[in-house]
This record gives sequence, C-alpha cells and structure tokens, in this order.
Amino acid sequence: MAEAMELVPHHVGLSVPDLQSSIKWYQDMLGFILEKQMEMPPLHAKIAFMKYGDFRIELFEVAGAKPLPEDRRFPQKDLTTHGWKHLSIGVKEPKKVLEMLKNKGADIALEGEVNGEAMGFVRDNAGNLVEFNKIGFI
Amino acid sequence: MAEAMELVPHHVGLSVPDLQSSIKWYQDMLGFILEKQMEMPPLHAKIAFMKYGDFRIELFEVAGAKPLPEDRRFPQKDLTTHGWKHLSIGVKEPKKVLEMLKNKGADIALEGEVNGEAMGFVRDNAGNLVEFNKIGFI
Repeated sequence: MAEAMELVPHHVGLSVPDLQSSIKWYQDMLGFILEKQMEMPPLHAKIAFMKYGDFRIELFEVAGAKPLPEDRRFPQKDLTTHGWKHLSIGVKEPKKVLEMLKNKGADIALEGEVNGEAMGFVRDNAGNLVEFNKIGFI
Repeated sequence: MAEAMELVPHHVGLSVPDLQSSIKWYQDMLGFILEKQMEMPPLHAKIAFMKYGDFRIELFEVAGAKPLPEDRRFPQKDLTTHGWKHLSIGVKEPKKVLEMLKNKGADIALEGEVNGEAMGFVRDNAGNLVEFNKIGFI
C-alpha cells in the first residue's frame, strides 16, 4: 500500500491560445524538448507534451477557449483568486537566469528577494507566470 | 551558461480559502510534509510549503480572495480558459491509487483511460484538480 502511494511530479497543464508559439517559447527560452503532439477531438484540443528531465508541461490549445484573466499576469493579483497558480522552477542562480532570460527577450513580471535570496517571475509568450527560485530554497 | 540553465521543478502555487484545511488534506491524502509556514503581510497572505521528495506545493491563503471559478472543478471545462491548470502526479499504478484515495474519502472528478493506461482526477478539499498518471506515461 505504501509503495503504491509513492508520488513524483508528472506534469502541469497549461491552456494556451497558440500551441506552436508556446512550444517554441518553452523550447527557445527554457530548453524544454517537444516529446509528443496529439489531438483530442472530443475536447476540441491540440496537445503537446514538453519535457525537461523527468518533468513535463502539457500544453493544450482548445478551440474557442477564453483568454487568460488579466489578474493572472501579475504574481500578487493572481493569488487573489483561488486555484492553481504559477509554476516555479528551481535553478542554481536565479539572478543570473533572470538576466539571461531578459537578454533573450523574456518579459520580466517581477524581480526581488525573499529572505535574502534572489527570485523572480517571467511571463511566457501568452502571459503565464513562471517563477524562478534557488533550488531547495523556501 | 548552459549549467546556469539547468532546471528542476521547484513548486506549484495554489491559492486556497483555508490554509489549515489544505495542509491537512495534502498531508492525510497524499503524504506531503509541512515544511514551513510563514506570513507575508504585504500580500495579506498566510503561506505553507508542503513537500514531497524534492517537490513542493506552495499554499497561499490570501485575505478576501475570490472563490475558485466553478469551471475549474471540471477537468475538461478548466481547459476552456487559458492559464495554468491542474497538477499531475505520477504513480506506478494510477487505478490502485485512485481506488485508495476513493476509500479515504477523496472526491473523484474523473476516471478514465488514455491510450490504454488508467488515469484520473481528484478534487482536493477546496475543489482544485489533481491528476494521476502512470509515471513516465504520456
């Protein structure tokens, strides 16, 4: 029973307006690899699994989907509605990574420090927040 | 430069109506450990880091936050608004895990098969969708 309940993160779902643009952003900016593309006609959805190590982002382009609520583009405002929020990625040097992403044209939503450690948020090509924290830091 | 961009999943943010109830659900149902609690007065937020292995869920209870949009309780409807969606957790035997969670009183949102592999969604205590997939399966 205990073994059955061993958990690993598998993926986070992300609904986007344009699948190909989002595939490109996660490839070019963050180095994710396109693992699989498929269609799910009952959901009117085109799907792509983007992989990095053992972790994935599952991108969904659903026909007629509503746009990202404006609050979701801002780390603090996003928290003022209940539900799943940002994905945070751990890196060795958040400050350096944010600088590199900025140089590559990423849209920086917030840069700061928490308990003396650099952290920040970028927006992906569709405005979704991706946080960067130092690996293991809380 | 390449080493700086080595990424690992750090956490997913989750805004909830009641921090203590959510801490308890992720402990009792999924075996997460409460790693740290803190307050962020500028955000009017109480925060808890829940840890499982190297992965975390960051719970936020923000004063006056708006309720989970009703669509977000349903896996397919949730995808019809752009943004970050469900967290998926990988397990060796999704069917067995869903059965165990059901026996512990979890609210099952969907049970099914994708390409011959069992999968499903449960709702946490606040209605947020947690998916279960076989480890490595896409």
